[in-house]
Amino acid sequence: MGSFQIRTDLALEARESVSDADGSMRGVRVEEYYKEEEDIQVTKVMIDTKNAAKVMGKPVGIYVTMEAPALVEPDEDYHREISDCLAEELLQLIPNAEKEQSILVVGLGNREVTADALGPQVVDNLFITRHVVKNYGKAAYNCSRMNLVSSIEPGVMAKTGMETAEIVKGVVSETSPDVLIVIDALAARNTRRLNRTIQITNTGIQPGSGVGNHRNALTQESLGVPVIAIGVPTVVDAATIVGDALDQLIRDKAFDGLEYVGKQSMAMAELNNMYMTGKDIDAVIKRVSFTVSEGINIAMEKAMA
Amino acid sequence: MGSFQIRTDLALEARESVSDADGSMRGVRVEEYYKEEEDIQVTKVMIDTKNAAKVMGKPVGIYVTMEAPALVEPDEDYHREISDCLAEELLQLIPNAEKEQSILVVGLGNREVTADALGPQVVDNLFITRHVVKNYGKAAYNCSRMNLVSSIEPGVMAKTGMETAEIVKGVVSETSPDVLIVIDALAARNTRRLNRTIQITNTGIQPGSGVGNHRNALTQESLGVPVIAIGVPTVVDAATIVGDALDQLIRDKAFDGLEYVGKQSMAMAELNNMYMTGKDIDAVIKRVSFTVSEGINIAMEKAMA
Amino acid sequence: MGSFQIRTDLALEARESVSDADGSMRGVRVEEYYKEEEDIQVTKVMIDTKNAAKVMGKPVGIYVTMEAPALVEPDEDYHREISDCLAEELLQLIPNAEKEQSILVVGLGNREVTADALGPQVVDNLFITRHVVKNYGKAAYNCSRMNLVSSIEPGVMAKTGMETAEIVKGVVSETSPDVLIVIDALAARNTRRLNRTIQITNTGIQPGSGVGNHRNALTQESLGVPVIAIGVPTVVDAATIVGDALDQLIRDKAFDGLEYVGKQSMAMAELNNMYMTGKDIDAVIKRVSFTVSEGINIAMEKAMA
Amino acid sequence: MGSFQIRTDLALEARESVSDADGSMRGVRVEEYYKEEEDIQVTKVMIDTKNAAKVMGKPVGIYVTMEAPALVEPDEDYHREISDCLAEELLQLIPNAEKEQSILVVGLGNREVTADALGPQVVDNLFITRHVVKNYGKAAYNCSRMNLVSSIEPGVMAKTGMETAEIVKGVVSETSPDVLIVIDALAARNTRRLNRTIQITNTGIQPGSGVGNHRNALTQESLGVPVIAIGVPTVVDAATIVGDALDQLIRDKAFDGLEYVGKQSMAMAELNNMYMTGKDIDAVIKRVSFTVSEGINIAMEKAMA
Repeated sequence: MGSFQIRTDLALEARESVSDADGSMRGVRVEEYYKEEEDIQVTKVMIDTKNAAKVMGKPVGIYVTMEAPALVEPDEDYHREISDCLAEELLQLIPNAEKEQSILVVGLGNREVTADALGPQVVDNLFITRHVVKNYGKAAYNCSRMNLVSSIEPGVMAKTGMETAEIVKGVVSETSPDVLIVIDALAARNTRRLNRTIQITNTGIQPGSGVGNHRNALTQESLGVPVIAIGVPTVVDAATIVGDALDQLIRDKAFDGLEYVGKQSMAMAELNNMYMTGKDIDAVIKRVSFTVSEGINIAMEKAMA
Repeated sequence: MGSFQIRTDLALEARESVSDADGSMRGVRVEEYYKEEEDIQVTKVMIDTKNAAKVMGKPVGIYVTMEAPALVEPDEDYHREISDCLAEELLQLIPNAEKEQSILVVGLGNREVTADALGPQVVDNLFITRHVVKNYGKAAYNCSRMNLVSSIEPGVMAKTGMETAEIVKGVVSETSPDVLIVIDALAARNTRRLNRTIQITNTGIQPGSGVGNHRNALTQESLGVPVIAIGVPTVVDAATIVGDALDQLIRDKAFDGLEYVGKQSMAMAELNNMYMTGKDIDAVIKRVSFTVSEGINIAMEKAMA
Repeated sequence: MGSFQIRTDLALEARESVSDADGSMRGVRVEEYYKEEEDIQVTKVMIDTKNAAKVMGKPVGIYVTMEAPALVEPDEDYHREISDCLAEELLQLIPNAEKEQSILVVGLGNREVTADALGPQVVDNLFITRHVVKNYGKAAYNCSRMNLVSSIEPGVMAKTGMETAEIVKGVVSETSPDVLIVIDALAARNTRRLNRTIQITNTGIQPGSGVGNHRNALTQESLGVPVIAIGVPTVVDAATIVGDALDQLIRDKAFDGLEYVGKQSMAMAELNNMYMTGKDIDAVIKRVSFTVSEGINIAMEKAMA
Repeated sequence: MGSFQIRTDLALEARESVSDADGSMRGVRVEEYYKEEEDIQVTKVMIDTKNAAKVMGKPVGIYVTMEAPALVEPDEDYHREISDCLAEELLQLIPNAEKEQSILVVGLGNREVTADALGPQVVDNLFITRHVVKNYGKAAYNCSRMNLVSSIEPGVMAKTGMETAEIVKGVVSETSPDVLIVIDALAARNTRRLNRTIQITNTGIQPGSGVGNHRNALTQESLGVPVIAIGVPTVVDAATIVGDALDQLIRDKAFDGLEYVGKQSMAMAELNNMYMTGKDIDAVIKRVSFTVSEGINIAMEKAMA
């Protein structure tokens, strides 16, 4: 296990770093399946007990991880097959998905920072229906059932002077949606997971998670409605990656890592508030955000089919 | 008086089109003064009675109009003298401006439509303090008194599925500011007023005003806190300008305009939802929005001096 | 015929306003066909003689106009059927389209002015291949034949200090493409044509055309390579629309329009450098530009099939 | 000296890692001075010999580095004092700065990637004069002498399919400026230098430098005109920072680093094409780019005074 504090938003990675030799762990169930045609590896981590949650550093709940290598490669248009898979998994986590509901999609992050712009770019491509149904009825879509989809881009505290949670709480209490879907860019521990992994969880957003380090939580507990979070790791925490390299070395050299770590961590203080990302991040975010928004659009439609 | 319904957000223009021969009108007081050095014409229209409000098509309240021809011309940086004048007028309309207050600035409009991007661009340049004072105290600014400034860009209904008023109401009830300052791009009737006029009013935003035609009101009545609106006309309503040209002609020719108008207005239905704007609107909006945001920044500072 | 100078970039409209009673005109051939399934009206105007060119105010050449009402309506994704039709018509105008060629796509206009952002947004979505083939060979695409597609967004003179033509000439002489495809937002005379019409011509870009009024020409004559121009009308010239309304009135009233026009045109001087556009122009431009870029992508692919 | 290949665009850092114990080095002269009032440390590194150039990994020429800690802190508006200092140093490197000249400013980098957007954002704020002087003469500015300033944002190869050098060459040969000023975001080795250091050099842009790793050179040799490059380090190369941490450790532990490095460097292959940057990079780039553009504007004006 790492001598440095692990900074990962992926339950998958949290589990890797704490699981026993045989990969099992008390209070944590894992289901995996592989979609051959689409080349998508789906891993479902279920944290069942408070104790397991503590060890994992993630709250009790379900974490679905889709690993889709194709996501990093350009497609004619976007990756429809990945959007379809996302829609399926999403519908399984949304309570009463078969019922007509009002759903608010929250695009977290900073549009001005490429690696953090996933949320804002996802809401840009959503099929928004709430205002049309409210003003013209479902007839406007020639259908008898239609989810009311709305969206908000709360922005970042440095620009608004408000916590994201304050803004979202206010909008939720004013428009009372049935479910929240929150989109955020995440930090992974392993560079190999960047931009090709999608995590869907019913535990919402935890304090200090995401690229932008949101201070407050966006959870059912804090907002009063179920919160599904969809995240894609777009960065690696700088301190983490350096820490990992050193751990590796310390292990290899079998000298006293701990004694050493003290000095080193001071040297690494300057790495705080820094992150590592790829040079083609703009193209990646554009493509991934479109795939995610299409996944949500498909799910909203399927729910009504 | 125009045969076509007047579409103007400027009290100044509303008055011009309804005032008597001698320019006076019952229930409406007007004060004017000219700042020679800055070449700024300030006109204060005070609508005192319900009846006058009805005739003017504007609610009872104070409307300060700054006409600054310099605003359309490029400056080394921006027009500091206009920002100073705006700050002065703004402070006169903010209740208890001398007290330490929490002020929420709302940037209305659509960032993606240049002529409607004034609000979003103004909030981009504000000096936001609320989160800093909340987290680190006023000490962070080495001062004993400091307004808490926050801002929000609610976006447009087509993208959020929510009325602007729903979002603003929610944020207001969650963060309870003392005063709202709402920024919006306006429609003028006269092209000569575009981009060189700033209107400040204590009546907030009325339904159907602005370039984006916000359906709901943002007023003290609807939000429970004083609402100061700052607007700059960036467009002319298409139907209005054609209508005006026709009125002119009808007058000149002294034939029966009214009979004619019926036919013509049908022909003009297609002009609805269209507006007219200048070809250099991007440079104008960039400069004007900076001048307005600086005006607000200066006012917030002065209030603490 | 209009008493005011006609300002239209559409050959279709130029013809309407100059054709004889029977709609025919010497030196101008017209072919029309209607694609029922796709609801696309295609009109091919061929200007064959210098004299006809003079009367029409458009150079000798072929002007294909696609009128597709669906273009203004939102689609699940974008209008594939319109892109297919555009690809077909485009391939008929590109010389030696069946041969492997190097094609430079030029996105004219100002990204910061929504109604003028068509060109820049089209190049954003192109499938660019030149650098890949140059560096890794066609093998990179597992194919033996591949067009070399490159693109440039020259920007506007106010920001670059250079004529668009200077920048394009320089890039052409340095990279010597076989064909240019130039994209630009156009001005229509009739609001009913806005955003639902695509004009493709082999005459390139003429001085003073487009929303941004490019001063110089981009033509085979000036650049030495064939120039295909694709344009979509996104604005109506303000003076034109007022003029049309007045003409209508003058005709109706059968009084001496010409005497009147003198006065009026002075009154309309202020309308110069103004244009009229729709309030949902951002959504329209986003959708239309994607449809056009897909049309080009499909054409480049078909050419190699 | 580092066991890993150093990736730095700063001559200052290159020198640090190769200089002798006494800090001196044959063929390299160094002048330093400190501007107390402005708290700006200016270091001028002059590489005089081919041999020194080889050891430094930088071509023969002058490298002026301004270290201004204030640059990372928000200012009322921007840092005028730093712009003034930049203007002075810039004028010393521009040949015949006292003469009236035509100057083309090239904004390198990718506007869509925040850390790489310095160049594009700098050209956004330049005072462009070439087109005005060409069309209306110097009289337009009521002056007898005026530099002709133009600018171009060539974009990135992934979007244009062309090398930046091809585009710039074409524009230079078409508009024949007297001097080029090229702006680029740089990679530093030391995180403490990020966003507070400005490097000005008369050697232009070297292959493989900058955040975007431009493949080709932009130099007097390749373009035929003097090329002044202004760069600000906004990122740290990921491999470099991990490498540095390991070197440190290896030194501390005094075991055989070289044997170890082999293994590690493979493990670090994945770090290629990744960089490290700060979380507030958007605010930093916005402020720094404005300071740099003002520096250039001031220099152009002074040259005419």
